[in-house]
Amino acid sequence: MKKSWVLVAVLAAGVPSWATAQGMDDAIRYRQGIFEALKWNFRDMGVMIQGRKPFDKARFAKEAERVAALAKMPWEGFVKGSSKGEDVPTRARPEIWYDHDKFNTMMQALIDRSAELAVAAKTEDKDGLHHYYGRVAEACKSCHDDFRERD
Amino acid sequence: MKKSWVLVAVLAAGVPSWATAQGMDDAIRYRQGIFEALKWNFRDMGVMIQGRKPFDKARFAKEAERVAALAKMPWEGFVKGSSKGEDVPTRARPEIWYDHDKFNTMMQALIDRSAELAVAAKTEDKDGLHHYYGRVAEACKSCHDDFRERD
Repeated sequence: MKKSWVLVAVLAAGVPSWATAQGMDDAIRYRQGIFEALKWNFRDMGVMIQGRKPFDKARFAKEAERVAALAKMPWEGFVKGSSKGEDVPTRARPEIWYDHDKFNTMMQALIDRSAELAVAAKTEDKDGLHHYYGRVAEACKSCHDDFRERD
Repeated sequence: MKKSWVLVAVLAAGVPSWATAQGMDDAIRYRQGIFEALKWNFRDMGVMIQGRKPFDKARFAKEAERVAALAKMPWEGFVKGSSKGEDVPTRARPEIWYDHDKFNTMMQALIDRSAELAVAAKTEDKDGLHHYYGRVAEACKSCHDDFRERD
């Protein structure tokens, strides 16, 4: 117990700015981290759907589960004021905070469609999954079109 | 359906190196993304456990759920050969791949202890959660001590 407490203290002491004001850079790193993880899984699924490598049903289902879990997480990282980072660049457009209802609706579409894909992945075969995969891809793209700066 | 297919094609076409050889930089970005997301949640829990902000039981439980879900994900990003990135720096030590059994055991401890914390967070109060939180913190620290380069 004593050892644990020291660790807790060390962990919290290392992040004073975060602990007080939830540093904007931390928020940006958080949401970008989630999207990186989401992309890794989602792209692998796309390669299988496209037939560029063999369809592995168990792998696809596992990745769909991960995408569904991750889709619920980034929202909280879009902290007000984090349209610009201190040291961390972000492509988040200010419209996220001006047009918050639309942004929320789009994020909810990602959550809902990812959940549908994860459910479908348990029973459907590759052909049946195209539709569900495409709907998630559309949710990604629409939100990027409206709320993410182009490269 | 047709529109979906175009999106799938666009997504897959954008990542040829990944699709063929699982680019090492992508693997590094993936695992680092997971750890960033894990840290964001875990630190907030630590601030509450320490009493540096009020303990919010529902928030703590939600974050514990996220940590438990995220803890299961990074393992796959430690692809063989990804001890060095091309453009992305990594602090992963080569021992991860030399002493793989030990590394796996430590990653499993993170998974198991995070799951225990998430279960405990549903019923225990703040005092009861110290122990479970500390055990996850220890799992993080032991693995960092052995397998992550110091700054």
